Amino acid sequence: MKNYKMVIQYEGTRFQGWQRQTSTGNTIQGKIETILSKMTGSSVEIDGAGRTDAGVHAFAQVASVKLETKKTSEEIMTYLNRYLPEDIAVISVDEVPERFHARLNAKGKHYRYRIRTSLVPNVFERRYVYETEVKPDVVQMQKAAEILSGEHDFKAFTSNHRIKKSSVRKININITQNSEEIILDYTGNGFLYHMVRILTGTILEVGMGERKIEDLPALIKSKDRSIAGSLVPAQGLTLIEVFYE
Amino acid sequence: MKNYKMVIQYEGTRFQGWQRQTSTGNTIQGKIETILSKMTGSSVEIDGAGRTDAGVHAFAQVASVKLETKKTSEEIMTYLNRYLPEDIAVISVDEVPERFHARLNAKGKHYRYRIRTSLVPNVFERRYVYETEVKPDVVQMQKAAEILSGEHDFKAFTSNHRIKKSSVRKININITQNSEEIILDYTGNGFLYHMVRILTGTILEVGMGERKIEDLPALIKSKDRSIAGSLVPAQGLTLIEVFYE
Repeated sequence: MKNYKMVIQYEGTRFQGWQRQTSTGNTIQGKIETILSKMTGSSVEIDGAGRTDAGVHAFAQVASVKLETKKTSEEIMTYLNRYLPEDIAVISVDEVPERFHARLNAKGKHYRYRIRTSLVPNVFERRYVYETEVKPDVVQMQKAAEILSGEHDFKAFTSNHRIKKSSVRKININITQNSEEIILDYTGNGFLYHMVRILTGTILEVGMGERKIEDLPALIKSKDRSIAGSLVPAQGLTLIEVFYE
Repeated sequence: MKNYKMVIQYEGTRFQGWQRQTSTGNTIQGKIETILSKMTGSSVEIDGAGRTDAGVHAFAQVASVKLETKKTSEEIMTYLNRYLPEDIAVISVDEVPERFHARLNAKGKHYRYRIRTSLVPNVFERRYVYETEVKPDVVQMQKAAEILSGEHDFKAFTSNHRIKKSSVRKININITQNSEEIILDYTGNGFLYHMVRILTGTILEVGMGERKIEDLPALIKSKDRSIAGSLVPAQGLTLIEVFYE
């Protein structure tokens, strides 16, 4: 068995997320495993670095997989791209040391959330942005991002109510704006379930004057999901990169 | 009746082109006319500057339309965007002098054809590029583009065999390349049916060594479609801009 690292790109629109489900879910992991199992003739399990939710996109998801095959890395990639649907693409396959594990070895991730504020739609980008007609105050959003950045217990910002492990994460949020979009770039050593989308909802509420910046430290301390911001739609979110040492 | 100039953006993928058809075709013109007819309560005809083919996209198509309505230009735009499918968007509506006609007054157009040459697919751009595994010689393509640029009778480069009017056009073809794509930018005072796609096919054949640059002047002179290059797929083509005085 050889161990492979794969970089995978997908448009999440029509999928129920990355992770294979016990039911007959349409997932990215499921699609790839089905093809690799057919290719090798035996059951294959692939580990993704980030379990992106239904509707979330990936510019460069990373996965690791052990395979018994005589194909070269390039042939594996070609085989996958031939059989994958057009909204999933494998953009690299490399043989890696046996101990490499895409999720366990990941040192950090970069997620991007795009909010389209222009009143004019853009049909070419429509699947990758959250379109809203509100005009938030970006300077206020940037101030909120500064407070939320850093090492905190982010328990208030996850939909997972039964976390057993630590919910402390160290993140940085950088917000930029162009004439059409507000772009929130999240980098960090890890992200909890729904964390990026709840943080974005919270920051957006600050930008809309519905929430005070001064209340953010208490919100973090509360560890109470019910007083954090709303969950913004999945389609604005893209996993941009996974970092390794 | 007031006269309006509209700028319209669309992803052509699932449409049978711009132009309304007598049959029950799914066209961009048809979609817009149906909504405007409902809005005004009487039959509306809209004139587009370029009759883009099935599968061709538009970043900024221009159309003119006469309407009897009390709505402001902004209200017309909002109304249209509310009822249009998400792959068509009206990006501006302006009242213009009565004599303005989007097609008859157009001084020129800019079309872009994108060829993706990277072996690695890009799922986010896949609908807007022609993906090919060939690696054409771009310098040769640029030389071919230089010869085809200028004022010529482009009769060899159209699928319309029964042209009654002049098929002389003045165009410029500019070819650039980045690590993933070859981009052909066509600007000109007018384009015949299928002209951009046949020119692109011809230039691509030069880049692949299947056609000699020296033969291009004779090809132009021949006015014979059967010896020009093949018609490249519609999905790589986008109408970028329409020029007016």
